[in-house]
Amino acid sequence: MECHQFAGPLFTDLYELTMAAGYHRHALHTQRATFSVFVRNPGRKRNYFVAAGLADVLAELERYHFTREDIDYLRGLDLFTASFLDYLGTLGFSGDIWALPEGTIFFPEEPLMEITAPLVEAQLIETFVLNTLGLASLIATKASRCIHAARGRSLVDFALRRTQGLDAGDQVARNTHLAGFAATSNVRAGKRFGLPLTGTMAHAFISAYPTEIEAFRAFAEAFPENAVFLIDTYDTLEGARNAATVGREMQARGQTFQGVRLDSGDMVALSHAVRTILDAEGFKDAKIFASSGFDEFGIDDVVRAGAPIDAFGVGTKVGVSADAPYLDIVYKLVRQGGRDVRKLSPGKVTLAGKKQLFRLCDGRGRFREDVIACRDEDMDGAEKLLTPVMVGGRPLEPHPPLAALRRRFEEGFAVLDERYKDIHNYAAYPVRISPRLKALQKR
Amino acid sequence: MECHQFAGPLFTDLYELTMAAGYHRHALHTQRATFSVFVRNPGRKRNYFVAAGLADVLAELERYHFTREDIDYLRGLDLFTASFLDYLGTLGFSGDIWALPEGTIFFPEEPLMEITAPLVEAQLIETFVLNTLGLASLIATKASRCIHAARGRSLVDFALRRTQGLDAGDQVARNTHLAGFAATSNVRAGKRFGLPLTGTMAHAFISAYPTEIEAFRAFAEAFPENAVFLIDTYDTLEGARNAATVGREMQARGQTFQGVRLDSGDMVALSHAVRTILDAEGFKDAKIFASSGFDEFGIDDVVRAGAPIDAFGVGTKVGVSADAPYLDIVYKLVRQGGRDVRKLSPGKVTLAGKKQLFRLCDGRGRFREDVIACRDEDMDGAEKLLTPVMVGGRPLEPHPPLAALRRRFEEGFAVLDERYKDIHNYAAYPVRISPRLKALQKR
Repeated sequence: MECHQFAGPLFTDLYELTMAAGYHRHALHTQRATFSVFVRNPGRKRNYFVAAGLADVLAELERYHFTREDIDYLRGLDLFTASFLDYLGTLGFSGDIWALPEGTIFFPEEPLMEITAPLVEAQLIETFVLNTLGLASLIATKASRCIHAARGRSLVDFALRRTQGLDAGDQVARNTHLAGFAATSNVRAGKRFGLPLTGTMAHAFISAYPTEIEAFRAFAEAFPENAVFLIDTYDTLEGARNAATVGREMQARGQTFQGVRLDSGDMVALSHAVRTILDAEGFKDAKIFASSGFDEFGIDDVVRAGAPIDAFGVGTKVGVSADAPYLDIVYKLVRQGGRDVRKLSPGKVTLAGKKQLFRLCDGRGRFREDVIACRDEDMDGAEKLLTPVMVGGRPLEPHPPLAALRRRFEEGFAVLDERYKDIHNYAAYPVRISPRLKALQKR
Repeated sequence: MECHQFAGPLFTDLYELTMAAGYHRHALHTQRATFSVFVRNPGRKRNYFVAAGLADVLAELERYHFTREDIDYLRGLDLFTASFLDYLGTLGFSGDIWALPEGTIFFPEEPLMEITAPLVEAQLIETFVLNTLGLASLIATKASRCIHAARGRSLVDFALRRTQGLDAGDQVARNTHLAGFAATSNVRAGKRFGLPLTGTMAHAFISAYPTEIEAFRAFAEAFPENAVFLIDTYDTLEGARNAATVGREMQARGQTFQGVRLDSGDMVALSHAVRTILDAEGFKDAKIFASSGFDEFGIDDVVRAGAPIDAFGVGTKVGVSADAPYLDIVYKLVRQGGRDVRKLSPGKVTLAGKKQLFRLCDGRGRFREDVIACRDEDMDGAEKLLTPVMVGGRPLEPHPPLAALRRRFEEGFAVLDERYKDIHNYAAYPVRISPRLKALQKR
């Protein structure tokens, strides 16, 4: 169902190409190298992350190649030798990848992907890999916080108009769904990823008719099975009464009035007042949808205040992860030509060597501790979280459907301790480094 | 030079389509409507904005059409009548657009675009228009703040690895350039928009060689005209001395050592120490580049502290506009079927009617005041900022090249009073509503 949009090998920083040319000139380009991808957490705004974006990484790398037009453009830069450009023209991605399955919960400093490939190949894909895993995981993580705050209420993605670009709109729809959102308003993403769609009317629709009640009637006539009326264009309580009037007309025709949407004002007070009106009119099953700048914090506030809101339309602040709009995701060389390597810049330390990530659970199946270890270590009773997903440039198996990734997230989230799900307070999950991996760092 | 990537008409919220179906059913779809696009500023994090994104809007609308595949997908949703889907299949964009030229400085609540078209057409493009103008203007605005903070020092875009998606990466490269950045590391955007490219090496390149100095030598050999050495992989001052050593070797070969890059640590102290080393070695012209989480605030700090940094590589925080990661950009119906309309939701008021935006300058050519007026008003000595750019779905003229948009920004920014450029303090630029437009609101 998922359809990957090819980024192309020019989706890269120039220095990846100048470095590649340097490696090529000094015959280092085919040396086998391993890069490790992980997320730092300097701002401590997140207690955990949700892995996402792997499907797009694999789809891109499987098709990785420079077109003739790409090579012509690079030639025009007057930076590269003909021999290097010829080499690029023949390049594919032939490496091996281990990664966390999408939907896996992970923690700061833990490897979420390790790529082993000829040095040039591994270097050239850095920018694409970071961008793709970074955005998808950023959004899945943010969405999971909303799901937690909503305590079982339904969430839908309304972010498309203010995501950071076209591609981000689709990624937001997909990865909020991965983390449990019910539907999206984004039609293109619905088509691309097979997502449930949702949405009824905007204020402009109400304004386009002489009166609010005429707009509701017009909508109910066109979409008798999808009638959620937006009631705040003029006066919200009057809007609720108009909605109920049209609801009764629908009832008389054997149709079902679904509910109303609030988009401005005091959500707690208005939802109570509107609930009272709807109940008094006999519409106890009609739902109240709310959509006014919500994120996990806003949802938490109104849920705690007891607002009778059944579902939230969640937009901009989640679509750009406004309180923390990027992951500090990095791609570090950890092994090259048979030796393990690490970087020692102040405040930026990398763990050398190929790694595995183990997760230990307690007797009730709850996450207890993670251990970052050497790739070939074993640990009794622990789940190995990094799994091989690509060998020699070919995916090992078809990527699981989005529904399976969503289930993986749900299952993991269900056994994550409440203190790490707290959206307000920082809590550091215990992550150890195995004795063998520690010893390796000293060498 | 610019190559537009088609978003397609499914890049829309579902409710645009359900509303369109409602209009179509009630024969309102061909009524002429005007929508106004403007930016609210509730957080007061910006004193002004820089208009951008128009080229992509016009290119998309000129080609606007539903493919057979799009229609088939919509049919599968089981929401729409065959008659409406047939109608969509024939739809193009036939409207008129007035807009601020890209590079124009504008202020909160001012119209930056007004679209007049048959109601359905104008409604369906809302999501795309907001997303496109919103991201481009967000980034151009953020970039202009960095340009101001850098006080003449050169800035380059290094954001690609952490922008919110693929498309955002290109938009960041283009729109930071529009606002004065010198170059980008994004190769794809370089090709797409004809931008100057920049970049040399990452830490992985240094790690890939047995010693730092061997890595510098290898790079200098491959790129004798592009030698900026990254000196913080092991020890920054030792790195500066190694760079100078390789610089002398280059000099002996008649080549020029360009400079060094700092990527971690205390930028003020290190830049002074590195400058001393380079000067002592006779490299007074070698430049110091810095790239460590900079945004306008970080640049301002080190520039005020007198750090001898010649150029900044600016990344993530600018690429996602981290301190304010979205514009509160909206699209409001202001006129329909011959009557001016407005919305009155609490805290969300719209100015009815087609508008013009006038800018008054003082005797020295500095911006003095803006006036939002009726479209057909005239005002002596004031510049009319909204200009017609599309009539009947056709652009009036080829879009100006990026260099011209950049010049427009530079010229406007030069005559914007310093108090509005202040990155730390809010200052409200005077924006008036003309008496005639005010009178119209009362009716």
